[in-house]
Amino acid sequence: MTGHLPHPLPPHPLPPHPLRSDARDNRERVLDAARALFATEGLNVPMREIARRAEVGPATLYRRFPTKESLVTEVFTEQMRECRAIVEGGLADPDAWRGLCAVIERTCELHAHNRGFTEAFMATFPDAVDFTADREYALNALARLARRAKETGRLRSDFTVDDLILMLMAHRGIHAGSTATRLAASRRYARLVIDAFRAFPGEDAGGPGHLG
Amino acid sequence: MTGHLPHPLPPHPLPPHPLRSDARDNRERVLDAARALFATEGLNVPMREIARRAEVGPATLYRRFPTKESLVTEVFTEQMRECRAIVEGGLADPDAWRGLCAVIERTCELHAHNRGFTEAFMATFPDAVDFTADREYALNALARLARRAKETGRLRSDFTVDDLILMLMAHRGIHAGSTATRLAASRRYARLVIDAFRAFPGEDAGGPGHLG
Repeated sequence: MTGHLPHPLPPHPLPPHPLRSDARDNRERVLDAARALFATEGLNVPMREIARRAEVGPATLYRRFPTKESLVTEVFTEQMRECRAIVEGGLADPDAWRGLCAVIERTCELHAHNRGFTEAFMATFPDAVDFTADREYALNALARLARRAKETGRLRSDFTVDDLILMLMAHRGIHAGSTATRLAASRRYARLVIDAFRAFPGEDAGGPGHLG
Repeated sequence: MTGHLPHPLPPHPLPPHPLRSDARDNRERVLDAARALFATEGLNVPMREIARRAEVGPATLYRRFPTKESLVTEVFTEQMRECRAIVEGGLADPDAWRGLCAVIERTCELHAHNRGFTEAFMATFPDAVDFTADREYALNALARLARRAKETGRLRSDFTVDDLILMLMAHRGIHAGSTATRLAASRRYARLVIDAFRAFPGEDAGGPGHLG
């Protein structure tokens, strides 16, 4: 299942051009508004609605993002950057088990907020990004984190990165009417996944036995 | 989330008409073939393909199921009957924790085999069945089973039936190329869900603490 990593990571950790702070504020407001609207309404939401929600004029919006496609691509790139930051944050934690738990919680939260956007992006621009390198990076980083977490004795010894991919893939099956319900369901899901991965006391290998 | 129970149960536990054994064999073969083809190809698979796979003549197929709709409805009813049998089997186990584990494993397996069929059926015949009574039955039965499983000390004390519904809903997010890969993923998923629900030794309430 390693070919199905649901959250590939981008190769560009920083935006290309530094901006003055007021311009950066407008840019962030546009991106926040676009992210929220793309996630709830899909990619067809009109540019004027994004400007309205961001509380900027249409001229400001089009100066920063001359086309809808450039805005969609930037939101996607930001999201991929956030995925990379989540993995790096997990790796940076001196407590590897806590780092792994944070990766699970933050990834579920990110996807509960952006539900639908990534899939809509991938369906609309299937060849926009080559994820090979990002997938390699993420899989290697998560494997290192898992190895360290096992050394602490708190991650089940039969854990593989495929288990994490499986549970993040399953997370996409969670549907709920409102954003609040979806976020609550995602948080509970992350909590249960963490407990599923936890080493069971007194067991040398894997979980506590099938029905034991 | 109790309004989203993904596996409602039917009110009819037995087929309406007993059949002679050769007729029953043909009927079962047609239903097996239809179940497999609907699950992999969708509801549009031609009747002649179902007859071919079942190794019965078209006349035999149409004698038992004069229309595609009657066959689709019967496959669905059988599947719902199987859902009810799974819940009843869990309740009948004198070891309630083992019964709950079996409900999780068998439901995941059923849905890995029939992936797509239930959703296609519900989309095509949205008003065909009223699930209110079945949902009530399943929720009550699972709540009773969970109560008894908690008394054994092996089910986490903060478990609710919503947790089970959440994890079964998430199961639908698992996609995989081949049936074999999907079944393996479903089995691993069921195993992890069971471990997520397991009471952690030495804890009075719920799981072992967030990041502990």
